[in-house]
Amino acid sequence: MASFTTRRRVEFRDTDAAGIVHFSAFLLWMESAEHELLRAAGLRVIERGPDGIDASWPRVSVSCDFRGPVRFGDEVDVAVSVEKIGRTSVTYGFAFTHEGRDVAHGRVVAVRCLLRPGRDPESLAIADDIVARLSAYRPTA
Amino acid sequence: MASFTTRRRVEFRDTDAAGIVHFSAFLLWMESAEHELLRAAGLRVIERGPDGIDASWPRVSVSCDFRGPVRFGDEVDVAVSVEKIGRTSVTYGFAFTHEGRDVAHGRVVAVRCLLRPGRDPESLAIADDIVARLSAYRPTA
Amino acid sequence: MASFTTRRRVEFRDTDAAGIVHFSAFLLWMESAEHELLRAAGLRVIERGPDGIDASWPRVSVSCDFRGPVRFGDEVDVAVSVEKIGRTSVTYGFAFTHEGRDVAHGRVVAVRCLLRPGRDPESLAIADDIVARLSAYRPTA
Amino acid sequence: MASFTTRRRVEFRDTDAAGIVHFSAFLLWMESAEHELLRAAGLRVIERGPDGIDASWPRVSVSCDFRGPVRFGDEVDVAVSVEKIGRTSVTYGFAFTHEGRDVAHGRVVAVRCLLRPGRDPESLAIADDIVARLSAYRPTA
Repeated sequence: MASFTTRRRVEFRDTDAAGIVHFSAFLLWMESAEHELLRAAGLRVIERGPDGIDASWPRVSVSCDFRGPVRFGDEVDVAVSVEKIGRTSVTYGFAFTHEGRDVAHGRVVAVRCLLRPGRDPESLAIADDIVARLSAYRPTA
Repeated sequence: MASFTTRRRVEFRDTDAAGIVHFSAFLLWMESAEHELLRAAGLRVIERGPDGIDASWPRVSVSCDFRGPVRFGDEVDVAVSVEKIGRTSVTYGFAFTHEGRDVAHGRVVAVRCLLRPGRDPESLAIADDIVARLSAYRPTA
Repeated sequence: MASFTTRRRVEFRDTDAAGIVHFSAFLLWMESAEHELLRAAGLRVIERGPDGIDASWPRVSVSCDFRGPVRFGDEVDVAVSVEKIGRTSVTYGFAFTHEGRDVAHGRVVAVRCLLRPGRDPESLAIADDIVARLSAYRPTA
Repeated sequence: MASFTTRRRVEFRDTDAAGIVHFSAFLLWMESAEHELLRAAGLRVIERGPDGIDASWPRVSVSCDFRGPVRFGDEVDVAVSVEKIGRTSVTYGFAFTHEGRDVAHGRVVAVRCLLRPGRDPESLAIADDIVARLSAYRPTA
């Protein structure tokens, strides 16, 4: 199995006045699941460089399609796979299910960046070691 | 001018430890800007039906591309246009700028739905009056 | 040991541009820890009544004192105790630590209420069975 | 009139599955209203020092009592007053009303701090000019 999986329970703050989970919660869950995958791959989400400058993974694109509602207290399973690794970017795919029912699908493109305080993020090539570790989460054919 | 515009000032809770606005804030701003457009069009965001059942506009798809950072205290201009009106759905496009600089672009597909307490949202055809009012925000050729 | 304990890892959305956890995250963690305590006590957070009306625990008062910062990725331990059980309300105390270091203390007063759609919450006496279950989390002398 | 007033419209993300505004929204509104007061007083919320180090106002204590619900689309009036100015801290009081109806009361203690990247906030004495500007928002006897 090539994807990383995690599970979240819907918290009350995740809901809205329609009585269901607010759409933005799925976007936050994607970011956190991506971070869990990085940790599982033996990588640090924010890496402090020798010069004291952080490297991390700001996202340049996010999308999500919603297929069905989930509610307060529900457990949501999140499957993450690494769909594509470019020179500076990684594309992740996300599938959300609740008790086996398809509830949402998402995609995120994150870019390897240096983060200098007060400066705009600056992209850089993804190191070979990181590529190798992330490749373990490529979907199998 | 065919688009609706609004402006937000970045609040502290919109930021994250990278020192810039968290990506999810743009998604929330899209929803609120859509609601402001509906009010400007003379429509209620949540409409109480004769049977006490609400009709509203849950989103089935969202996406956003991020072009540049914005920071605490910045003012962000949001331009919204109605890109497409289907039988039950409306597609909105969003362009975010800060002092004229392009910072993000987004798209939302919202579906006209009945919301019965404890039930899944149920789509319905968009009434002609609503179509007419939203059509004022179609982009001009 | 009379208190209930749980642990959270700081997610990126919990942080702000000061580089530390935003104060509001502690308030959200309190609500979720309270809900976990209720489940551990064998109680439902939202209880559907025979008449289809929900009973739950809206909060009427919250407070939190912040003693030290926590950062992205840190694990935060939350200890919850039931400080007082009144006729309609429960007072919870919360102590947050990170690696044994005191980081925040909070208090919440939640009131047993009926929630009728579209109506204001209406307080009611806490049933004896609930009092008995919550009493297990009273701090020991 | 010694207090500063501002107004917010309840956004959809401010609500929860009880159909009303989530309690945490009031805490966020307090922080933003405090920041608006600072700007109205001619002060910068985050001040960049000559050495490139920011000075700002992290909160060490927050509390809020909730008197009545507000709902999606409601306009909420926020009155802020400076209750106390200490050597390093300012205590703000907040009163929230909706159409003249009392809905919540809060209090925040914020401390003047230096924020060095990666270090804990470090308190410092509030400059006389800041004390003078904030004093305009002391409640009248």
